[in-house]
Amino acid sequence: MPTIQVPVDKIIDLSQRSLERVGVPPEDAAMVIEILVLADLQGIDTHGTRRLGPYIERVRKNLIKNQPKITLDKKTPSVALLEGDNALGQLVGQRALQAAVEMAKDQGIAYVGCRHSNHFGAGAPYALLACRANMICMLGTNAFPTMAPWGGREVKVGNNPLAIGIPRRKSPHFILDMAMSVAARGKMRKASERGEAIPGDWALDSKGAPTTDPLEGLKGFVRPIGGHKGYGLALVVDVLAGVLTAGAFGTGVKSLFQNMDEPQDIGHFFIALDPSRFLNLESFFSRMDDFAGELKNTEPFDEASPVLMPGEIEEANLQHRTATGIPLDEKTYQLLEDLAGGRYGHSMAAY
Amino acid sequence: MPTIQVPVDKIIDLSQRSLERVGVPPEDAAMVIEILVLADLQGIDTHGTRRLGPYIERVRKNLIKNQPKITLDKKTPSVALLEGDNALGQLVGQRALQAAVEMAKDQGIAYVGCRHSNHFGAGAPYALLACRANMICMLGTNAFPTMAPWGGREVKVGNNPLAIGIPRRKSPHFILDMAMSVAARGKMRKASERGEAIPGDWALDSKGAPTTDPLEGLKGFVRPIGGHKGYGLALVVDVLAGVLTAGAFGTGVKSLFQNMDEPQDIGHFFIALDPSRFLNLESFFSRMDDFAGELKNTEPFDEASPVLMPGEIEEANLQHRTATGIPLDEKTYQLLEDLAGGRYGHSMAAY
Repeated sequence: MPTIQVPVDKIIDLSQRSLERVGVPPEDAAMVIEILVLADLQGIDTHGTRRLGPYIERVRKNLIKNQPKITLDKKTPSVALLEGDNALGQLVGQRALQAAVEMAKDQGIAYVGCRHSNHFGAGAPYALLACRANMICMLGTNAFPTMAPWGGREVKVGNNPLAIGIPRRKSPHFILDMAMSVAARGKMRKASERGEAIPGDWALDSKGAPTTDPLEGLKGFVRPIGGHKGYGLALVVDVLAGVLTAGAFGTGVKSLFQNMDEPQDIGHFFIALDPSRFLNLESFFSRMDDFAGELKNTEPFDEASPVLMPGEIEEANLQHRTATGIPLDEKTYQLLEDLAGGRYGHSMAAY
Repeated sequence: MPTIQVPVDKIIDLSQRSLERVGVPPEDAAMVIEILVLADLQGIDTHGTRRLGPYIERVRKNLIKNQPKITLDKKTPSVALLEGDNALGQLVGQRALQAAVEMAKDQGIAYVGCRHSNHFGAGAPYALLACRANMICMLGTNAFPTMAPWGGREVKVGNNPLAIGIPRRKSPHFILDMAMSVAARGKMRKASERGEAIPGDWALDSKGAPTTDPLEGLKGFVRPIGGHKGYGLALVVDVLAGVLTAGAFGTGVKSLFQNMDEPQDIGHFFIALDPSRFLNLESFFSRMDDFAGELKNTEPFDEASPVLMPGEIEEANLQHRTATGIPLDEKTYQLLEDLAGGRYGHSMAAY
């Protein structure tokens, strides 16, 4: 499908109108769009503005509140619970991140748990915003189950992504944004379409054996990174985002796409840590430079693929796309135009 | 080699005498031994009392201080830096864990970073102690480099283990203790001795290609879990344990076994989070029971291998070994007897 380069301002304008049209207050819409557009800029196309389709569909069905009452319940100066009141996930995430950063500036560290939220997009944009505020941040969200518990043959665990941001003096900041599966099912589908084998660590077949056949993998299960390790990490994220927040967890978390008759009931968490409490920022940044410098100065297997720090690819995308616009396929661009104009009726498959 | 079942009290007695004999104060020795014996009980034999060999060798060479001045520098009520003064790593870890738990009881969350420490053993014992204090805990340590940065062909990254403990009403507590490599080199050595192939995700050969040949893997590199993901997580641990604490990081961290002429200069971190600030403990425990119950009630691939929660295997070992004693091969038992009696001169290879 042909791709067009859409200037960032144009995407922001269409997105803003789309959300305001379904009753989202302008300042809330702007906070949501900041996250979506950052994902577009960072190259995380699957979690950018194209997601406005299902989000707006959910708002229209009253499955997401357009004018929620989000409240922050500070339990101590360092920990808080944020009641999402079924708001757009990015709004919940932004409010929680801001609270965590503020509290950590005061206390050195802070945890903010969020409940009754929705799909909050990618983790990398939040990590980037934390870095711009000179904060270390660890954040996660639970998600609709797509993995089996390790050793099991029923899907019961979300891939529960975890993101970590560590600020540096200059971009690229250190940003790691990872789901707990080795590879998403979408990658298996693409391999299958191309008739290619998949690496042996991506999937188990329906009997639990590793497979390199994408079709067998699609009938089976995505593998968590490091087997029981990734399974365990997915559970940790769910505890911090769901169990501890008195929100939903495990199979109580619903799909953005499949459960179009109920709220998703997603939980997130944000931990912010202020490096300037330990070192003056210049010293911290110098140490990060030394750390990164030594790693990047490693002889690569392939001269064309030098060793990278987490976040470098996203930053390169961001620089490039800020200058040249965000590549959207025509269908997605048309979707944004339609949403901005109040023309609905796209099928979920379009998103 | 024949194995003998050594009662826990006997191991504690030998270990206590071993440490006191090289000038470690009795109460410090007891704290160190608590961690080592818990590792033995949990079945983490490689990180239990047999490690007293190299630890004591280092104390005797003045590479570890037997009477350090450990100081806690509280930067706020929620964050602190612990100066390890080149103490035994388990002593540093215990002090830091206690501080983090106390501060989190007061503030809801706390971070304690540690510098100028030594090998602190396994993470699981600390996680267990946190759970017994009804605290969620995330802890990590940097380590002597054994992995290459993702895409690189030089060893520059520790496998920097991360451990997470989440308390439950009754044992088994949720305990995840994971290094960032898929499998340790020792497992490749065993496969090689048996003439067996290794799974394709364990190692890269010296040219960077995945290999199932353990000899090629040993000449090459252990793979981080999830490729760039495990590499990224190892870096996060090093930042929280080394860069932020103004201690050593990356290749500045030395080997317990190989660098017998300089301190290891290891850093750790402990984050404690008090669930009772969010829910009363009984509610939290009930939710954890629901969470675990649903996961464990998953149809397994193999009826003989039901789905487990992280920590169940360690707890079963602990119950069993508390009752029956800790299995030690005769050589290791003799080592403890010799150390307790002040007979040194075992080669490092014995440990």
